[in-house]
Amino acid sequence: MTPERLYLYDTTLRDGQQTQGVQFSVGEKREIAGMLDALGVDHIEGGWPGANPTDSDFFAEAPRTRATMTAFGMTRRAGRSASNDDVLAAVLNAGTPAVCLVGKAHPFHVTTALGITLDENLGAIRDSVAHAAAQGREVLFDAEHFFDGHAADPGYALACLRAALEAGARWVVLCDTNGGTLPGAIGDVTARVIAEGIPGDRLGIHTHDDTGTAVAGALAAVDAGARQIQGTLNGLGERCGNANLTTLIPTLALKSPWAERFTTGVQGLERLVRMSRRLDDILNRVPLRSAPYVGASAFAHKAGLHASAILKDPTTYEHIDPASVGNARVIPMSNQAGQANLRARLVEAGIDVAPGDPRLAEILREVKAREDAGYAYDGAQASFELVARRALGLVPDFFEVKRYRVTVERRKNRYDRMVSLSEAVVVVKIGDRKVLSVSESLDTDGSDRGPVHALARALAKDLGPHQAIIDDMRLVDFKVRITQGGTDAVTRVIIDSEDGAGRRWSTVGVSANIVDASFEALLDATVWKLIRDRADPTALAAQ
Amino acid sequence: MTPERLYLYDTTLRDGQQTQGVQFSVGEKREIAGMLDALGVDHIEGGWPGANPTDSDFFAEAPRTRATMTAFGMTRRAGRSASNDDVLAAVLNAGTPAVCLVGKAHPFHVTTALGITLDENLGAIRDSVAHAAAQGREVLFDAEHFFDGHAADPGYALACLRAALEAGARWVVLCDTNGGTLPGAIGDVTARVIAEGIPGDRLGIHTHDDTGTAVAGALAAVDAGARQIQGTLNGLGERCGNANLTTLIPTLALKSPWAERFTTGVQGLERLVRMSRRLDDILNRVPLRSAPYVGASAFAHKAGLHASAILKDPTTYEHIDPASVGNARVIPMSNQAGQANLRARLVEAGIDVAPGDPRLAEILREVKAREDAGYAYDGAQASFELVARRALGLVPDFFEVKRYRVTVERRKNRYDRMVSLSEAVVVVKIGDRKVLSVSESLDTDGSDRGPVHALARALAKDLGPHQAIIDDMRLVDFKVRITQGGTDAVTRVIIDSEDGAGRRWSTVGVSANIVDASFEALLDATVWKLIRDRADPTALAAQ
Repeated sequence: MTPERLYLYDTTLRDGQQTQGVQFSVGEKREIAGMLDALGVDHIEGGWPGANPTDSDFFAEAPRTRATMTAFGMTRRAGRSASNDDVLAAVLNAGTPAVCLVGKAHPFHVTTALGITLDENLGAIRDSVAHAAAQGREVLFDAEHFFDGHAADPGYALACLRAALEAGARWVVLCDTNGGTLPGAIGDVTARVIAEGIPGDRLGIHTHDDTGTAVAGALAAVDAGARQIQGTLNGLGERCGNANLTTLIPTLALKSPWAERFTTGVQGLERLVRMSRRLDDILNRVPLRSAPYVGASAFAHKAGLHASAILKDPTTYEHIDPASVGNARVIPMSNQAGQANLRARLVEAGIDVAPGDPRLAEILREVKAREDAGYAYDGAQASFELVARRALGLVPDFFEVKRYRVTVERRKNRYDRMVSLSEAVVVVKIGDRKVLSVSESLDTDGSDRGPVHALARALAKDLGPHQAIIDDMRLVDFKVRITQGGTDAVTRVIIDSEDGAGRRWSTVGVSANIVDASFEALLDATVWKLIRDRADPTALAAQ
Repeated sequence: MTPERLYLYDTTLRDGQQTQGVQFSVGEKREIAGMLDALGVDHIEGGWPGANPTDSDFFAEAPRTRATMTAFGMTRRAGRSASNDDVLAAVLNAGTPAVCLVGKAHPFHVTTALGITLDENLGAIRDSVAHAAAQGREVLFDAEHFFDGHAADPGYALACLRAALEAGARWVVLCDTNGGTLPGAIGDVTARVIAEGIPGDRLGIHTHDDTGTAVAGALAAVDAGARQIQGTLNGLGERCGNANLTTLIPTLALKSPWAERFTTGVQGLERLVRMSRRLDDILNRVPLRSAPYVGASAFAHKAGLHASAILKDPTTYEHIDPASVGNARVIPMSNQAGQANLRARLVEAGIDVAPGDPRLAEILREVKAREDAGYAYDGAQASFELVARRALGLVPDFFEVKRYRVTVERRKNRYDRMVSLSEAVVVVKIGDRKVLSVSESLDTDGSDRGPVHALARALAKDLGPHQAIIDDMRLVDFKVRITQGGTDAVTRVIIDSEDGAGRRWSTVGVSANIVDASFEALLDATVWKLIRDRADPTALAAQ
């Protein structure tokens, strides 16, 4: 069977911009357009020229893309001709090879939201599409509220599609604008539309995730014969978001029967995770750990039974190879974990313990006891490794912390403004030598970074012979959670550190006292780095 | 048409616990079981007794629920009898009315992961189910990897189901363990299973979200005849999570054709949002704004065209009434609806501002600016009220904080053990009087509660004429989140306070310095209490 071509239409820069809290700059739009183009989507909907300054500026210097750059707009307003509507003119003046015009396909909306007759609406669709097509543009017609309209009045909904096609639209797009249509109905209605003579290869599908089924809805429409999918990266979009192309693309490329039935223009699928993360980065959003294919947890095997089978054969609990989308397998440590899980993680850390070694049970007990006290090792691999190393006698006495003190002060400065300053003193013993270090919390720009940064600096200021190893360390992230340790509330702090080589590691500390919990995590971070980068790793065995 | 009964099986406390980073305490499990019971699910899978201390402790004193409390476990291991397998015994010893036993239904897994013959596996299923049924338990059989197994060897996959049913299982559950099966295939295979004689009303469906279609997959199975859905609240679960009951339940209750075809035991749907948020709260997870039905953005209408139509008729862009799940419409702050919302919130706080008062717009601007800086007022009503009162000139100058200092020290005590101690000094001016207060962090039992408690005590130690009002205040909860404020990471602290009357209120503080953020929240908590309980509330107008 020769695979059929399926077309991908990305609206991250238009419908994705309707996400609450999302506001692209022109530069960000350009960067995202570049990512989309590299990914190989067929159309990039860049925005609505004339609707806001950002979109107008973006189109004024639209990037050159292999994908068809598309301007979004709406059909002409009532009482004007298509050539005399300044809103439509702004869309066409953007000069893109394609334009996508949205229009109503639901009688209730025509009369309630627009306040015009059903025939006037058909006229607006026909005129607007014809006007754009006459300028040589590829025209798409977004049939707004198509599924609700079809339920209310199938004849009228279809008449809207026919009006657009007859006026020269290349694609008519069935939009489930309110996101309320479930996949079964989307499939049924799409099949009926095709049965009524609308060709499937001129039919697109635009779904929203209001019932958590946007991806399935798009697949149902394709299964019924539609050949264009509209969606967004990371599922951005109005309300609950649009169909997530970051999910759909790997399904279409890797999963049966889609991979056999269809081809798309997509390439470089193994860059998908990086692309998804970069978009979150641009938007300052925390990446969704559970996101299909690209989430940090998408291939995390926490259940002990799963982990032991994964060691025998990864396909036992993985539906695709994580590397195919640029992701990686994770075997987190947790109180669910069995010995197999533990061994796998130790091997990752370069520690080889034979199966059945009684110290495995000992480490497991220690980890479980600590998790009961509030520690969490899922997100703190370096601290987990130190627990194991300590149980195995594989942590040298680099230095000993004798005491520390942190002071946080807030008072008026000489300009009568309240300012804060923290100061930390750390006293360590290195061999026979006692070292006192003091640091404060101010950044070079004078801003206060708080007591934990002051502590981190004091601890890393002078560790004598070890100093060269930790000089390039810095604290890059800091997470705090109040949790239960035994019967009392305790604070769990997770600290991410980074070094000059760009390596990143996470450590955990727990205490009723947030500063103590932070200090414990800082200490683990330092010791882990010393173990990893010490001059002679083999010397350890002799100790 | 008489609606059919559809059964909901919740596994938040078992499969949900496999979520990376999730670690329930026994108390949290009890609270969640209570929420599930109030919601009206049919089964609550509480965990795996014997697999870890938390689950064992939970079942040792399992809460009494109307829902059928269910213990999870696996079929007996090879080479033992069902009555002689200590892992299975621990599950049965939990004494729950129902047990759910997972077993393999895929030849590859039987031979690769278990290393036994196909017949031995059928024997293990038969024996284990019969053993549990003989004890009078309702038995469910989770057919692991059913869909992959059915693709590889339909006869064997079906034989596993038949073995369980013949041995007395009430339900056999088709598990898409790796989450790789798409809804179309789930529907087809479920229909084939029923055509092979397995009754639909003894058939459950268990899906995962690895292709973003867990909800659609569950619906496809029900459409084909299955009558039990397994899922989790907020879609927690291994890897990408399980089928999200928080999404499925409103679809089944409110959407066509599901609402007409089926009934469930669900009640109090209008509490769904609160329940979903409470679960995130317990887990200290940031609620997903775009979550279907319950997300903060689920009914947010950002597009200008949508917002203006919504004002004419909400059904134009809403597929359900947001109030039916306890959610609310969100329309950008700048317009009339935003001000109406604000007024409603002010009235709740006892502040009456006339519609159209220009100060409403001012308060909205202030709230928006603060939210951009990292504040969050959803969970901090008292601080929100203070923002509004300050803008309206309704906060008296009770006292002024001149400065504070907190010291955290950790050192060896006389028994050579490391101990921590925090001390806080707060200096306030009350009228013309300057008051210095000092407190430390030790509890009466000698344990260290950390710097924030020391600060809270010092601040509440002596506020002169106001002291009587705040004497019964205490800090009862403390939440910390690292978030984004403008371009930098900042710390957001939310503090819950309580007074002698059992009243509880929440305040928020934001700063790069966690102690500063905490102090700001403590200060708001104190001022709010002073306003609420001052001797003569009407005196304020005269100030």
